[in-house]
Amino acid sequence: MSVREADVIVVGAGLSGLVAAREVLKAGREPLVLEANDRVGGRILTEEPVPGVFLELGAQWIGDTHHRMAALAAELGIALYQQFEDGDTSYEFGGRVLRGDAFHAAYADDLEHVERVLRELDAMAETVDVAAPWLAPKADEWDRITVGQWYDAQGLSPLGRELIEICTVGILAVPTVEVSLLGLLVNVVTCGVTADLLSESEGGAQTKRFVGGTGQIPQRLADELGERVVLSSPVMSIDVSGDVVTVTCRGGLVATGKQAIVALAPTLAGRIMYDPPLPGVRDQLTQRMPQASAHKSFILYDEPFWRDEGLNAQLISDAGPARMSNDSCMPEETGGPGIILAFLEGENARVEGRWPEEQRQAALREEMARHFGPRAAKPELIVEGGWVEREWTRGCYNANPGPCGWIHFGASLSEPVGPIKWAATETALQWSGYMEGAVDAGERAAREVLADLG
Amino acid sequence: MSVREADVIVVGAGLSGLVAAREVLKAGREPLVLEANDRVGGRILTEEPVPGVFLELGAQWIGDTHHRMAALAAELGIALYQQFEDGDTSYEFGGRVLRGDAFHAAYADDLEHVERVLRELDAMAETVDVAAPWLAPKADEWDRITVGQWYDAQGLSPLGRELIEICTVGILAVPTVEVSLLGLLVNVVTCGVTADLLSESEGGAQTKRFVGGTGQIPQRLADELGERVVLSSPVMSIDVSGDVVTVTCRGGLVATGKQAIVALAPTLAGRIMYDPPLPGVRDQLTQRMPQASAHKSFILYDEPFWRDEGLNAQLISDAGPARMSNDSCMPEETGGPGIILAFLEGENARVEGRWPEEQRQAALREEMARHFGPRAAKPELIVEGGWVEREWTRGCYNANPGPCGWIHFGASLSEPVGPIKWAATETALQWSGYMEGAVDAGERAAREVLADLG
Repeated sequence: MSVREADVIVVGAGLSGLVAAREVLKAGREPLVLEANDRVGGRILTEEPVPGVFLELGAQWIGDTHHRMAALAAELGIALYQQFEDGDTSYEFGGRVLRGDAFHAAYADDLEHVERVLRELDAMAETVDVAAPWLAPKADEWDRITVGQWYDAQGLSPLGRELIEICTVGILAVPTVEVSLLGLLVNVVTCGVTADLLSESEGGAQTKRFVGGTGQIPQRLADELGERVVLSSPVMSIDVSGDVVTVTCRGGLVATGKQAIVALAPTLAGRIMYDPPLPGVRDQLTQRMPQASAHKSFILYDEPFWRDEGLNAQLISDAGPARMSNDSCMPEETGGPGIILAFLEGENARVEGRWPEEQRQAALREEMARHFGPRAAKPELIVEGGWVEREWTRGCYNANPGPCGWIHFGASLSEPVGPIKWAATETALQWSGYMEGAVDAGERAAREVLADLG
Repeated sequence: MSVREADVIVVGAGLSGLVAAREVLKAGREPLVLEANDRVGGRILTEEPVPGVFLELGAQWIGDTHHRMAALAAELGIALYQQFEDGDTSYEFGGRVLRGDAFHAAYADDLEHVERVLRELDAMAETVDVAAPWLAPKADEWDRITVGQWYDAQGLSPLGRELIEICTVGILAVPTVEVSLLGLLVNVVTCGVTADLLSESEGGAQTKRFVGGTGQIPQRLADELGERVVLSSPVMSIDVSGDVVTVTCRGGLVATGKQAIVALAPTLAGRIMYDPPLPGVRDQLTQRMPQASAHKSFILYDEPFWRDEGLNAQLISDAGPARMSNDSCMPEETGGPGIILAFLEGENARVEGRWPEEQRQAALREEMARHFGPRAAKPELIVEGGWVEREWTRGCYNANPGPCGWIHFGASLSEPVGPIKWAATETALQWSGYMEGAVDAGERAAREVLADLG
């Protein structure tokens, strides 16, 4: 058994925990970050299968209004580059593949109806205060119906219904019947508008990437913290006694402090043993916020051949395995391989994501060929990553409660329990589910512990 | 650190774990049961606030087809007595209180429609194989709609809709919008028919009680097992290496064996650290099976005065705090106080169940008076128990996955992971959610480990 002492014990060296620790240190207090994994970053994970080629198996983009992330990247000396978006999207519905304008012309009425439904979501979202969604005038009604149920009732055409499902699953990473309408509205409010739900340009949330990989951000934050970050130390228990918080890790490390910040997704935070036990309402909440199901497949070619053909490498498909994709190349000035990122989200992550690799990759090659021509059938390399098998994450991108979760349990999501504060992107008021939200939540949790430290 | 060794390590000394251990011992193998709590019984908890007066804060009844439980009680020498059911039920809808026949006469059409809906559920349930609900012909459709959504679509009158909600919540202990239609059908199949969903006579599931309290059952099972049951030992990790399973408890006890049976509700089983980590599909399932919300209030009077007035102490109310109640007295030959058990389930457990005791008990007294007359307003004692605050249970009665839970994750519910087998009533094929299911699951898990032990 080894013992460490600090002012604030931070559980989890994901972005939220690292940012929280940094803020604590900035304020002149000592943080200690305990991380279960043998690496920092949590849901940020950059792989480099070929030198200079960075694949983001986890968080990849920031959006134009992600000011915290832009500032953090600038501080850390990490450059941004623009997501490639020029050219047509390829659409596949009912076995028919159409490009950009042709698709829009063929289904103008369907698309116009989808737009109206999204505008209605925006209007509904305006009545929801993200700090207390359960107080919205219609919270009680909206938290008892699923998004899928509400979509079904909008009179959309089959194509419109399928399209709005695909785009919503692109955000939630679960079938829309698993999340309440209020839950979707909370997502909308934290991000501003629904514009990013349905957009050829990847919308407001996904416009810029990090030169050299997102993984540099948690790594540089960890480097700054130095020995204040301890890896391979899964937290098993958090005990509060008097003014002392004692955090015990598997492997024997015991850390004591005055405050704790648990910067884990709610379902993971719920696995720790707390003494005294957490309030029942908090425990029942974390039982009800499962991690979603996402799987990314990067398909690498010798060059981004689609760009010359006026394609942006984006697809929207009702057939799959990927329902969406986009261009995931390195910066233009860098050159490098052509990379298409195919998203398997929600049901596709659970069905095709569980197929044997060979079967899934064959289906992905066929799908690429349907959209981007015969060259797309012959990639040089496919690199894939799911999150469900990763012990210290257990699902991506984030978590949403099911029906009645917000109205009956939501108030405990970020409510401190004595010296224990809650971070992680799920607890953010801005851009919950995104890196921006992780920073928002980490900063807020740091303010809470600093206020209590006096 | 202390070390114990056995053939089979059983996690959890609830009914399912104790029965599993007993079967292992009967077969000539050595079980060791590790219990987090300082008592055995899990969701069985008998309190005796007055000598000879046993209140079942947890599991209370068995039904006429609960053959495993009847046999177990007989073996253990515990007598049964009949649930008192003679007399009229009191109904309260829209502020109007009506007794038995008057209610049935006033709302004959509404009730007939409810009966038709229940018969339709029975017909649908006949197409569901409880061992593989995801293979039912309409599984995919039924797991994507909530029970509440399906009820809403049946054209029931407002009273009929409210009545079927109350009775279903009486089983699921969560609002019907939290469980998929397939999930309800699974419950129906494991129990046979919907008859117990809506019945004045408490139906097939709740006809008999145990003289001296249900708590005697786990206690006598534990007595038989003697030092093979270790209390106050919360399991933190289960490691499998070669042929050895190592189970480590908070407090330092380490138990090794060849096989393990985890006899915990799925959400609690998901909190243990496993090495190697469990398959992702299993982990995502346990993220999606929250414990339900139930709270029991026992209201004690000098005598069961309602019996003389032709009442059975059962109420069904749209107002609450209790939506249902029944007679919970000791056996007639014993005499003793009059006891009404008021159920706060689902939303009522979460709203009124969180009220300050004084406020909730005042509301309960008023409700009793509305149904059972002015004497009911003046009980001698109220004894209450919720389950959410209990650290090692965290909700009752049982757990059901939300939409898509069965079709995407259900196959992993009781699928062994090498030497680790799963018990608890949630994994039962018969009477899942009941004590009978706990025994069914415990026996099945014992068969699995014994087969592997060879």
